[in-house]
Amino acid sequence: MASNSFGTLFRYTTWGESHGPAVGVVVDGVPSLVEISEADIQKELDRRRPGQSKLVTQRQETDRCEILSGVFRGKTTGAPVSIMVRNQDAQSVKYDEIEHLYRPGHADYVYDYKYGHRDHRGGGRSSARETVGRVAAGAIAKNILAPHGVVFRAGVISVKDIVAKERNWDAVEQNPVRCPDPSAAARMADAIDAARKSTDSLGGVVELVIQGLPAGIGEPIYDKLDALLAYGLMTLNAVKGVEIGSGFPGTLMTGREHNDEMEMRNGRVIFRSNHAGGILAGISTGQDIVARIAIKPTASIAQRQDTVNRSGENDGVLVEGRHDPCLCPRAVPIVEAIAAAVVCDLWLRVKGYPVAGTGFASPK
Amino acid sequence: MASNSFGTLFRYTTWGESHGPAVGVVVDGVPSLVEISEADIQKELDRRRPGQSKLVTQRQETDRCEILSGVFRGKTTGAPVSIMVRNQDAQSVKYDEIEHLYRPGHADYVYDYKYGHRDHRGGGRSSARETVGRVAAGAIAKNILAPHGVVFRAGVISVKDIVAKERNWDAVEQNPVRCPDPSAAARMADAIDAARKSTDSLGGVVELVIQGLPAGIGEPIYDKLDALLAYGLMTLNAVKGVEIGSGFPGTLMTGREHNDEMEMRNGRVIFRSNHAGGILAGISTGQDIVARIAIKPTASIAQRQDTVNRSGENDGVLVEGRHDPCLCPRAVPIVEAIAAAVVCDLWLRVKGYPVAGTGFASPK
Amino acid sequence: MASNSFGTLFRYTTWGESHGPAVGVVVDGVPSLVEISEADIQKELDRRRPGQSKLVTQRQETDRCEILSGVFRGKTTGAPVSIMVRNQDAQSVKYDEIEHLYRPGHADYVYDYKYGHRDHRGGGRSSARETVGRVAAGAIAKNILAPHGVVFRAGVISVKDIVAKERNWDAVEQNPVRCPDPSAAARMADAIDAARKSTDSLGGVVELVIQGLPAGIGEPIYDKLDALLAYGLMTLNAVKGVEIGSGFPGTLMTGREHNDEMEMRNGRVIFRSNHAGGILAGISTGQDIVARIAIKPTASIAQRQDTVNRSGENDGVLVEGRHDPCLCPRAVPIVEAIAAAVVCDLWLRVKGYPVAGTGFASPK
Amino acid sequence: MASNSFGTLFRYTTWGESHGPAVGVVVDGVPSLVEISEADIQKELDRRRPGQSKLVTQRQETDRCEILSGVFRGKTTGAPVSIMVRNQDAQSVKYDEIEHLYRPGHADYVYDYKYGHRDHRGGGRSSARETVGRVAAGAIAKNILAPHGVVFRAGVISVKDIVAKERNWDAVEQNPVRCPDPSAAARMADAIDAARKSTDSLGGVVELVIQGLPAGIGEPIYDKLDALLAYGLMTLNAVKGVEIGSGFPGTLMTGREHNDEMEMRNGRVIFRSNHAGGILAGISTGQDIVARIAIKPTASIAQRQDTVNRSGENDGVLVEGRHDPCLCPRAVPIVEAIAAAVVCDLWLRVKGYPVAGTGFASPK
Repeated sequence: MASNSFGTLFRYTTWGESHGPAVGVVVDGVPSLVEISEADIQKELDRRRPGQSKLVTQRQETDRCEILSGVFRGKTTGAPVSIMVRNQDAQSVKYDEIEHLYRPGHADYVYDYKYGHRDHRGGGRSSARETVGRVAAGAIAKNILAPHGVVFRAGVISVKDIVAKERNWDAVEQNPVRCPDPSAAARMADAIDAARKSTDSLGGVVELVIQGLPAGIGEPIYDKLDALLAYGLMTLNAVKGVEIGSGFPGTLMTGREHNDEMEMRNGRVIFRSNHAGGILAGISTGQDIVARIAIKPTASIAQRQDTVNRSGENDGVLVEGRHDPCLCPRAVPIVEAIAAAVVCDLWLRVKGYPVAGTGFASPK
Repeated sequence: MASNSFGTLFRYTTWGESHGPAVGVVVDGVPSLVEISEADIQKELDRRRPGQSKLVTQRQETDRCEILSGVFRGKTTGAPVSIMVRNQDAQSVKYDEIEHLYRPGHADYVYDYKYGHRDHRGGGRSSARETVGRVAAGAIAKNILAPHGVVFRAGVISVKDIVAKERNWDAVEQNPVRCPDPSAAARMADAIDAARKSTDSLGGVVELVIQGLPAGIGEPIYDKLDALLAYGLMTLNAVKGVEIGSGFPGTLMTGREHNDEMEMRNGRVIFRSNHAGGILAGISTGQDIVARIAIKPTASIAQRQDTVNRSGENDGVLVEGRHDPCLCPRAVPIVEAIAAAVVCDLWLRVKGYPVAGTGFASPK
Repeated sequence: MASNSFGTLFRYTTWGESHGPAVGVVVDGVPSLVEISEADIQKELDRRRPGQSKLVTQRQETDRCEILSGVFRGKTTGAPVSIMVRNQDAQSVKYDEIEHLYRPGHADYVYDYKYGHRDHRGGGRSSARETVGRVAAGAIAKNILAPHGVVFRAGVISVKDIVAKERNWDAVEQNPVRCPDPSAAARMADAIDAARKSTDSLGGVVELVIQGLPAGIGEPIYDKLDALLAYGLMTLNAVKGVEIGSGFPGTLMTGREHNDEMEMRNGRVIFRSNHAGGILAGISTGQDIVARIAIKPTASIAQRQDTVNRSGENDGVLVEGRHDPCLCPRAVPIVEAIAAAVVCDLWLRVKGYPVAGTGFASPK
Repeated sequence: MASNSFGTLFRYTTWGESHGPAVGVVVDGVPSLVEISEADIQKELDRRRPGQSKLVTQRQETDRCEILSGVFRGKTTGAPVSIMVRNQDAQSVKYDEIEHLYRPGHADYVYDYKYGHRDHRGGGRSSARETVGRVAAGAIAKNILAPHGVVFRAGVISVKDIVAKERNWDAVEQNPVRCPDPSAAARMADAIDAARKSTDSLGGVVELVIQGLPAGIGEPIYDKLDALLAYGLMTLNAVKGVEIGSGFPGTLMTGREHNDEMEMRNGRVIFRSNHAGGILAGISTGQDIVARIAIKPTASIAQRQDTVNRSGENDGVLVEGRHDPCLCPRAVPIVEAIAAAVVCDLWLRVKGYPVAGTGFASPK
């Protein structure tokens, strides 16, 4: 079963293994005449790139993207956009010892069980390196939506029990944790660094806010905006939960408290609160879309853990290599990219792909 | 855009409005030779039926299902199974006054905004009555999976701040709250009844456990088992969050604590814990699948709330009619049904639809 | 694998067996605010109805359709439209003797082989009765497209070696053969009646012309207009070939002759010929779309033919019951319906599903 | 709308323009543990490669393929297989003059009309160069099916009015026309060469035979084997018709003649004829699958033809460049590839993707 594609109209397929020759994505369903350049994509890829700070993996990848199709003279043609990034700093030899071991918290066991073998080098297909393709596709989605005022914001709002109070989205790219609260960011950075030094790892929560999305986006029963966001975000291996608006804490409220009352102000509908997270019955209300995801602590840690091997024997594994002591900071651009693809897909269901015409009449 | 279908191989489409002549579902992709009867479906429909206790809506629907196709002599033929339930106790007149009002927390505003009009009677298509079709489809999925030992369990584990401690799944159908902890169930029932009397409503959390699912079910990147569960469960209008395994609380753990170590016992892989919720990299591990969903307090309450009307004026609405003071108890069979459809869809990707043959050779 | 649905945006699923309680269709992806009534659908169903003349099967079905959902106050709501037709004149007892026999040219053998059993009564799911659902869905597609001037024409242009010269589309419903050439129609009728009397059957060719379709409809690589027409039309059991424009005879031309040269006339592009059949590279040119389908002679004939039975023994079968001596006349409305669904699906990809708005501003 | 993908389970997406940096394909849904090498794919690409003889275009492309993902140690892993071919001999300058002209019989006009601009160099996305990706995907499909004895044969059975009598499939690769009748092949070659010299072009018919396919492959209503073959083959720009079995000539037969009677021979069902082309009700019968496609004469000819330009003026165009005087010979491997993908997709619906297991037990 084909399972490497995402979306219905704006549909992309990612490909590539962590230590294969390259990773990439083919994006189908891009409207024509959208301006897109390698620089637009590179900007987003640089945000998810390893090696940006000591808080993330030290693998060195320049991650230079190449647009191979679908763009002509700076504009999309309506044909699929194929984007490739060559792998460079793949230290496969470090992975030889895990060829026969199943790392706890990783795909190793289930991949071998399901497929009969696996490309074990660097996690192969289960590596977070797969998200290079998603981020590239998300960059295109952002370019489609930006002229319409739709903006994607994400940031780390908790690391373990350190919780951000503020939502200063402009601060996110100013600190290595990508936290919208600069003072919490500093404490989060210390905690992550301490975890790294003690060969352990931390989890946290990323919040997503979509601004400027008009009402009416999302389908009413199965391709609901919230359901597709939950689906897309849950496809990240480390994500263990997705909330919309009031989320789990909302179950502590009563109906009277939870309902977002409405009123007219200056000819405009106003919701007095946003427990709905900007979505009612799967459809955007015109308010900000708000979602949060739970990211588990990184499974790869440089401590010996008990496990079993491919021969069905008890064994132990200490995951060497260069890993993120906390996945949250690098998850931020990925979350934005996934959300952009979801919104773009639903957006195009409303907008269609209007025929451009030639300026003179066709036969009748 | 078609948005009323769910699944890829095991694929169903629901149809029908709350106060139209009927609701129903067409289930495509059912393997042949599966035993199924109207009684099997009726049993599940009776669990979601209104009017079972004072804790749920008093609308009286017998919800008698009729199998219209796809079953011959008690067994499926491989053709689509069409199931219909006639609507009976539809008091549409009660809804006349909301035709021009947008109830807070409901689909009213976004439906009018998106579609230009709506069948306002009883919520029309946005009514929970749509789930009749899902429960019927889930009954078929359960019949497909039951011979393989796959069992779906769900129960209400919290109502507002009342939390179940126990997981006695056999107790679920013994109390009207459908809580796996009988003592918590009694307190939950009191709280729900009190909310009803004070014209307010409560939310809560439903936990889902899938037992007996072998390893290897789920696709690795986009049709992950956890992602499809999150998608399916989030399509319920009242759901505001989905967690798998450790979920949001899991972000408070370190990697060392969170990783589920493995060992061999009697020739069998054993995971020492199940923070993963039975899913690694989107694929079942062979452990129990564990998920939880947050259900917001019922939006329909018999208190006047501020809102706007179709003319863009400030107005107020008091939602009459017969509503669930807490949606959780009736959500239980629906959650099971959605999970069964997700698992069945992924199961068939692995199993295919083997050709039965005739017992004598075909030409070559 | 789900295989009873057609279309991507305008997507319908048919269900039902020839001698089950009913047949029907659920149409998803219908835009809101389209006017549709049971009378619109009934009009098309009456054209495919059995028993219209001695040239077609004498089975008596009134085929009264019932709209069960998706229409409110005469207009679609954007929700799925469910349509059901109860079966009436199902003489299942006549089919008892073929339960264990495989009729030549029928689905009997392959259904048993694939599924392990079959609803043999009247062909079950393989019966042409399945097309009731398609015709109903096509009626909706026609209503969506009619306001835009898109018109579907079809007619029988040959029966065996009797070939229509004229294309008087208005004559089609004036003769029982549904031939656009009245003089050929008379000879065709005689031939069909003679075949019926001699317990044999005839085949023929149906031509489809789509008028008023603007340029730009159809996708360039895989969802080409011609490819989807070929796909849709070939799903009719009796169809053995599909041609677009010049078709097979076009292979006798040279490139110089075949290319449709263009010129401007009064500010409009004119193609001097239409060997392309109105489609270049899968996309409509603005000319008439022209397709033809080959329909094999009816497999059901009241002559004994050699065959095998379910026990793998040589046997013989004489197909009793009431069958069409030539399938072409009743195929005409079905061909139009399939074409309308294909065009509507591609049309909506261009047009999208614009949000209606409420007349006052949403939050920002 | 995404339209560059083909298939449901075995699903590939092609990308790339004629004169862009590369063309390629991503194949999703490939089972794991299938042996595949670049040599297997290269062998098929070499058959469709330009410049093989004077009967085909003289563009020089070595078409070296590179497998970028999804294969580990010579076997597929279940991950998507990405294949890329760099473009080399792209003489884009020759195409500058057609930037503002619409070549008759080409996509130029409809692409500009639909998309507002186009990559005009070498036809851009509408170039037959897109089929590089399909042939590569087909090579994988053939490798999946070959161990099961399924073999794909195709050959040119007519060029204009020169018709092959013989079906010696082993002769196909022995002559540059790829005709299964060596004596007809010589006459066809002369005719094609004469057309080339007179700056004209020829069309013809390609026949496809699938041998060794067991009964039961194909879905009964919409994903019929014949319908998907028609769909797939009609996606080739030059194809104007598809026939299965008796095809259009079959409409001249009576039912008595057309029905393929059955009998048992040595415990095996035998059909006495194959007018069905190996398919009943969309499902394979176990006989050879037989299809034919009509290929129009090449639209690109080195004669001046009347047309219009992008400014809506009358103009003329003489298509320079290196073109096939007859598309049929190079269509042969493409037809096989498309058929292989269709059959593989339907095959996997029956077979599924069985879980490999590890040899020791999973948790329960």
